Amino acid sequence: MVKPAIEFYFDFSSPYAYVANEWIDALAARHGRTVRRHAILLGVAFAAAELKSPVAYPLKREYSLHDFARSARFERVPYVQPTPFPIATHHAARVFWWLHDTQGDAPAAQWARSAFRAYFTQGVVLSDPGALRELAQASGLDAAAAEAAWNDPIWKDRLREANEQALRAGLFGAPFFVVDGEPFWGNDRKAQIERRLAEGPF
Amino acid sequence: MVKPAIEFYFDFSSPYAYVANEWIDALAARHGRTVRRHAILLGVAFAAAELKSPVAYPLKREYSLHDFARSARFERVPYVQPTPFPIATHHAARVFWWLHDTQGDAPAAQWARSAFRAYFTQGVVLSDPGALRELAQASGLDAAAAEAAWNDPIWKDRLREANEQALRAGLFGAPFFVVDGEPFWGNDRKAQIERRLAEGPF
Repeated sequence: MVKPAIEFYFDFSSPYAYVANEWIDALAARHGRTVRRHAILLGVAFAAAELKSPVAYPLKREYSLHDFARSARFERVPYVQPTPFPIATHHAARVFWWLHDTQGDAPAAQWARSAFRAYFTQGVVLSDPGALRELAQASGLDAAAAEAAWNDPIWKDRLREANEQALRAGLFGAPFFVVDGEPFWGNDRKAQIERRLAEGPF
Repeated sequence: MVKPAIEFYFDFSSPYAYVANEWIDALAARHGRTVRRHAILLGVAFAAAELKSPVAYPLKREYSLHDFARSARFERVPYVQPTPFPIATHHAARVFWWLHDTQGDAPAAQWARSAFRAYFTQGVVLSDPGALRELAQASGLDAAAAEAAWNDPIWKDRLREANEQALRAGLFGAPFFVVDGEPFWGNDRKAQIERRLAEGPF
């Protein structure tokens, strides 16, 4: 019997989701699982949960900027704090869903890796259409088709639907995981997710 | 040369601080360190940082209640979600500082363990003066002296001073640790703190 996929929700502007995106596939594979990715907009969830980005709060901001980079180093993942930060990621997310629905999980996952790494290691501003076109091109996509997709009402609707589904799943932050129906929030829940996969509910 | 103590800040109403209070001494000892505890009021820090308790936010509330208990189980620490929750902890915190300043670190740490365990395993409501007197008695303290201490302006001032020092140290949540000058926030930073102690800055 095939075990259910790990549901993995992320916003392309979340440093912790970027780090988790680097370890989630290997962790899943060690436990005979696959990963089902969901690109969403954290701003929608923050509005629903009356939350803000950690860098929008006094005191927490400075700590968070330190912790983003440290948490990446802890997982041996390269990290360069991008500016501007955070950014709007609806274009990048629509490209994800366009690839997902027209080409499948693997090309969408490849785009997720490519866009995350571009922003968090090279500072490629995903909210800038010119930069995003270049990134699409460099990632082996048809840049004009990618741009058409992120402007197309079909993929706008698809992203909206993904956001709504994420809220129904209980999401209020990123990364957000669902393992066999149980939610886990945060890159720092990696060890708990690993135990859940190894032992079941604990 | 004696290595600096690990600074450990907590509010008696924080589930994650309770869990951390159970592992911090053993972790410190493994690395030749001691622990310097600081009882503070998280409400003061939340006000300064424009934050609220995780259970005060829609969506996040239900997840947090699940995660409190799960995070305790992950560390093999007993946990029974108390009600009411959260509670005012200024009385318990003043008893901490009274013991700390008049009897030393060890009796204060013993009170911290006793009060945390009473609230998070037996539902002893630390904000209730009668319950707190009984707990003081059961913890081997002079209950009348403890009550006098939590009503004494000296220990009110001492707690206020502790809160102000915590804000200067960068605290905006609990548990909050400072290891050789570097801040770590959260029970879930245990593995990072361990690496910091073993390897230095990473």
